[in-house]
Amino acid sequence: MDKAYVQIYTGNGKGKTTAALGISLRSVCAGRRVFFGQFIKGMDYSELKAPDFLPGFELKQFGRDCFIRNNPTKEDIAMAKNGFEEIKSKIMSEEYDLVVMDELNIAIFFELIEVEEVLELIDKKPEKVELIITGRYAPKELIEAADLVTEMKEIKHYYTAGVPARIGIEY
Amino acid sequence: MDKAYVQIYTGNGKGKTTAALGISLRSVCAGRRVFFGQFIKGMDYSELKAPDFLPGFELKQFGRDCFIRNNPTKEDIAMAKNGFEEIKSKIMSEEYDLVVMDELNIAIFFELIEVEEVLELIDKKPEKVELIITGRYAPKELIEAADLVTEMKEIKHYYTAGVPARIGIEY
Repeated sequence: MDKAYVQIYTGNGKGKTTAALGISLRSVCAGRRVFFGQFIKGMDYSELKAPDFLPGFELKQFGRDCFIRNNPTKEDIAMAKNGFEEIKSKIMSEEYDLVVMDELNIAIFFELIEVEEVLELIDKKPEKVELIITGRYAPKELIEAADLVTEMKEIKHYYTAGVPARIGIEY
Repeated sequence: MDKAYVQIYTGNGKGKTTAALGISLRSVCAGRRVFFGQFIKGMDYSELKAPDFLPGFELKQFGRDCFIRNNPTKEDIAMAKNGFEEIKSKIMSEEYDLVVMDELNIAIFFELIEVEEVLELIDKKPEKVELIITGRYAPKELIEAADLVTEMKEIKHYYTAGVPARIGIEY
């Protein structure tokens, strides 16, 4: 098994969660086990069906059925905090080769999770577990701690032309 | 069926092919049919196994077993040109909801395929077929013709720290 790293996908462009899904697919093809945790999100996304197709791929949502736009509710906070505890135990269990913390940057941005907790987790995670963190607004400290950081930069987006999110493409 | 668009993932950062794989996974989860063509590439990537897991997902490579670094050979040119003809017929057949032209930008950059041919294809493609084009160096004309463009910008990459590409992650 190769050494594992910490990857971050951030920025305002499309492709962050999708890139994490793509690496998950590749990992499954290579016979690896993947845990994909979605913070903030609890909507009915197409990817919820992915475990039906992909052996060794687990996905769990730690958010409500709407994205947080302004002030998080008590429920938002509790779901994110519980989700983080759960994902920590998944990482420490060494049962997974890849663990995705989708939208974790957003959870940090809304102060549902402290960046120090995440840094501590990166520090003490088992060597062999690859971590992927996604979401806009990756904090400086995480960027410093990560091995690979890609910024998805919006050059042109059809949302701004009034195209709604579409099943099978955006969710 | 929603109206379909043209998406481009370009830039020097990690996540372009992977984002296209992620959207393919989502599309399959939503019951759609996907054709994923890889220009330039003919290496033994993990994603070659994805069709074993995903119903309605087809993948084909139109490249040799090494990436073009400098001058393309006659074989490179022939494979790219034949690949483009094949993918055109896939698009026009209307049998697929999503067609990915992975690394097409690189094929254009190396002058294996002309940008005008691609613009013509975008112009005459069936309304319902979504197109995804990936690869560094997306030409200006394609960016103008596309509905969505994300630049994957390298902020930090472990390749530059000497980490080799790893199975299940990069390929």
